Amino acid sequence: MIRIVCDPGQRAGDRLVLTSEQTHYLERVMRQKIGDVLEVHFAGEGVHRATLLGAGELQIDPATTPVLELPTRILLYQALLKHDHFAEIVERGTEAGIADFIPLVTDRSIVREVTPNRDQRWRKIAIEATEQCRRAEVPRIHPVASLKDIRPPEAGIGLLLDPSGLPLRTAVANHAVAVALAVGPEGGFTAEERSLLIDRGFLAVSLGPHIFRSENAGAFAAVMLLGLWMR
Amino acid sequence: MIRIVCDPGQRAGDRLVLTSEQTHYLERVMRQKIGDVLEVHFAGEGVHRATLLGAGELQIDPATTPVLELPTRILLYQALLKHDHFAEIVERGTEAGIADFIPLVTDRSIVREVTPNRDQRWRKIAIEATEQCRRAEVPRIHPVASLKDIRPPEAGIGLLLDPSGLPLRTAVANHAVAVALAVGPEGGFTAEERSLLIDRGFLAVSLGPHIFRSENAGAFAAVMLLGLWMR
Repeated sequence: MIRIVCDPGQRAGDRLVLTSEQTHYLERVMRQKIGDVLEVHFAGEGVHRATLLGAGELQIDPATTPVLELPTRILLYQALLKHDHFAEIVERGTEAGIADFIPLVTDRSIVREVTPNRDQRWRKIAIEATEQCRRAEVPRIHPVASLKDIRPPEAGIGLLLDPSGLPLRTAVANHAVAVALAVGPEGGFTAEERSLLIDRGFLAVSLGPHIFRSENAGAFAAVMLLGLWMR
Repeated sequence: MIRIVCDPGQRAGDRLVLTSEQTHYLERVMRQKIGDVLEVHFAGEGVHRATLLGAGELQIDPATTPVLELPTRILLYQALLKHDHFAEIVERGTEAGIADFIPLVTDRSIVREVTPNRDQRWRKIAIEATEQCRRAEVPRIHPVASLKDIRPPEAGIGLLLDPSGLPLRTAVANHAVAVALAVGPEGGFTAEERSLLIDRGFLAVSLGPHIFRSENAGAFAAVMLLGLWMR
């Protein structure tokens, strides 16, 4: 079933007013007709069935549908990359189950800031990927941070992706805990940055014998954790 | 260290003659100079250190470097997709450790053939991704197959990715075996195709609560298996 993410402000009682973009998507792109049933996802509140009434309105069923949850919450501290590869990271990482994206500026970063246009584009990509993969929550995209601001989550673990680290499976517990992942830019973190992260309590883990590109590493790590922890 | 994949035919004793593309890549793109050391990977034979002599030649060290191997061999039967998303699948899947890519035509496939141009482009992408991620072998890209030709590997398992299947971790053994993955097109396999695969001995497995796009599913499944099986 088609799912769209809506703002609670779009709702008035059992009616929902679609944005013009949503109307276009449902009627033109997805060819939905009056009477068709779809799912409306209010971020943070749950998923409702809803019926298309036409004229940009939906009737909402008050019952909420249970949403399948991930076994844990994963934050990704990801160095900014050239060619707006960060957009791909948001798309793939949303599917892979990452809850928070925090762009990082590091010593070897070539891209060092986020324009408001890019930031808006990433938020839109995150919403679309959430709808498509039927996630319970739209991941959050945070302002740029620097390496000195980051630390492992409380009651969780920080993992620094590093080919010389412990195999992931050996490094993590058998049951899910909150995770912060740190992924460097194209050339990797410098030795100093690596030491700083390890001093902060991050653990160096390896994802196997191959070197993953920075734009794949975060999503691949999240997916490996999902594979280890899902029941 | 930079690694390039070469054909054994390029070698004569301890010398190697680069193709003009390789010379351009090393000298122009990667700014390598005479005397710089890199790695040469002869597919199926191993990795050697080599020194750039200039004029498109390398001197090869006869000793081979040990190559880190994946715990298993993964075949991906992947339905062809629109917009040549198959190219992305080859790139990401090579990193994720897939050894064989077999394009599939299914009932819901919109793309139903592979032009020689595309095939060549995919092979080039596979070589570049192999070099970049330092894999031991360049994955093979096979001719198009139809669903009735496919079966699980001997002494291995076939996995059909399906949101209603068993969780991957529950479905697979604790130690690595050969795996064939079957991934449908944008709209998924039809019920008949799903039954056919299950009759053939494929097991329906789920990769978690979310619906992965077809272009991510194969690589994500391979990476989950790597996470479960690497030591």
